[in-house]
Amino acid sequence: MHICSADIENLDKLTRVNLINSLSGFKSANLIGTVDKLGQENLSIVSSVFHIGANPPLIGMIIRPHSVPRHTLENIIETGVYTINHVNTEIFAQAHQTSARYDKHISEFEAVGLQAEYKISFKAPFVLQSKLKMAVELMSTQTIELNQTELVIGKITDIYLEDELAYCDDGFVDLERLNTVALSGLDKYHSTTAIARLSYAKCDKPLSYLATSPKNSDSN
Amino acid sequence: MHICSADIENLDKLTRVNLINSLSGFKSANLIGTVDKLGQENLSIVSSVFHIGANPPLIGMIIRPHSVPRHTLENIIETGVYTINHVNTEIFAQAHQTSARYDKHISEFEAVGLQAEYKISFKAPFVLQSKLKMAVELMSTQTIELNQTELVIGKITDIYLEDELAYCDDGFVDLERLNTVALSGLDKYHSTTAIARLSYAKCDKPLSYLATSPKNSDSN
Repeated sequence: MHICSADIENLDKLTRVNLINSLSGFKSANLIGTVDKLGQENLSIVSSVFHIGANPPLIGMIIRPHSVPRHTLENIIETGVYTINHVNTEIFAQAHQTSARYDKHISEFEAVGLQAEYKISFKAPFVLQSKLKMAVELMSTQTIELNQTELVIGKITDIYLEDELAYCDDGFVDLERLNTVALSGLDKYHSTTAIARLSYAKCDKPLSYLATSPKNSDSN
Repeated sequence: MHICSADIENLDKLTRVNLINSLSGFKSANLIGTVDKLGQENLSIVSSVFHIGANPPLIGMIIRPHSVPRHTLENIIETGVYTINHVNTEIFAQAHQTSARYDKHISEFEAVGLQAEYKISFKAPFVLQSKLKMAVELMSTQTIELNQTELVIGKITDIYLEDELAYCDDGFVDLERLNTVALSGLDKYHSTTAIARLSYAKCDKPLSYLATSPKNSDSN
């Protein structure tokens, strides 16, 4: 089946949005927690969080300024901080509901039934029910001129893991143990099943399967 | 469990790389097919492909210029085109093997046992074994000054779907039907199981489950 440029252009808007959103493959599902300078909370699901680099620990996301997460972007610029919280199988429906167009004076935490959690000396709220959460400091925002979306890059300053057995001996985090979900398209949520962890690829050596164990287990 | 900034800084390099790469959540797994101006092929797995916008249909990825995919970036700049091919459960090991540091004169297609496929009037090679592949035209490259990685943005011009039953009536593509895999960390591959597709969220309405059927099925 071949869909060409003209076919894409001729699709109605919603069909095109569903199609193009499916093409990148599986996506992360994260809740972005923010406050404005008066302390008004906001929580917004974002499917475009991606890794940028490990040293310094940088994480990026794409925000559409004219869509729902505009309060998120405004708050991040006002306070310079935000939280990123993994969506898991127990909270995926509440997480999805944060994408409704709530007024600015309404906290999505309350509206959807998730609990805000504050950590000492960090302004932005975390999601209590998330099992992997990060405190993030804004490093830069830049407009992508091709479509006027914003690339927001932050530095991860703190990581909170609910289950320390998910933290493996080589630094890898077992997302399945945390029930982190994957997203496809705009709105489909998936749980995952491990196929394999593969060794670092070398030209002259066959791949092998990597075994990992929790960092703090008895065997270490 | 709390890992603070100082903890992150004090980790050895490989542990930090594994940890930080795990934090964004599940990632897409895609093979980028390119040629240089002399026709020398290159194939490289990339875990940072992400959706930027549907109209125009824009897709982004982060390339580390000093890492293995540097040939990919050079070829994209030379020819202005590339292909993005979903990694599926049948080819994930070959896909991973493309990350080995092959010399420029070696085609990763041959080295790992995947077949290059050419379409009329498009220079860059597709992966025959992939079930969802896209022809992409380079739109922009920009350096992310914070860590000198490159943000590469392209426009999707053609979509090839092996199984048309994966294309749903509302434009959504059923990635599970195509056996597309998800990635976590640097090297863990996952298959997925659908939890649910959720309706467009509204403030005053409960969410419902969306059912979809193939676009070209008898029922349509």
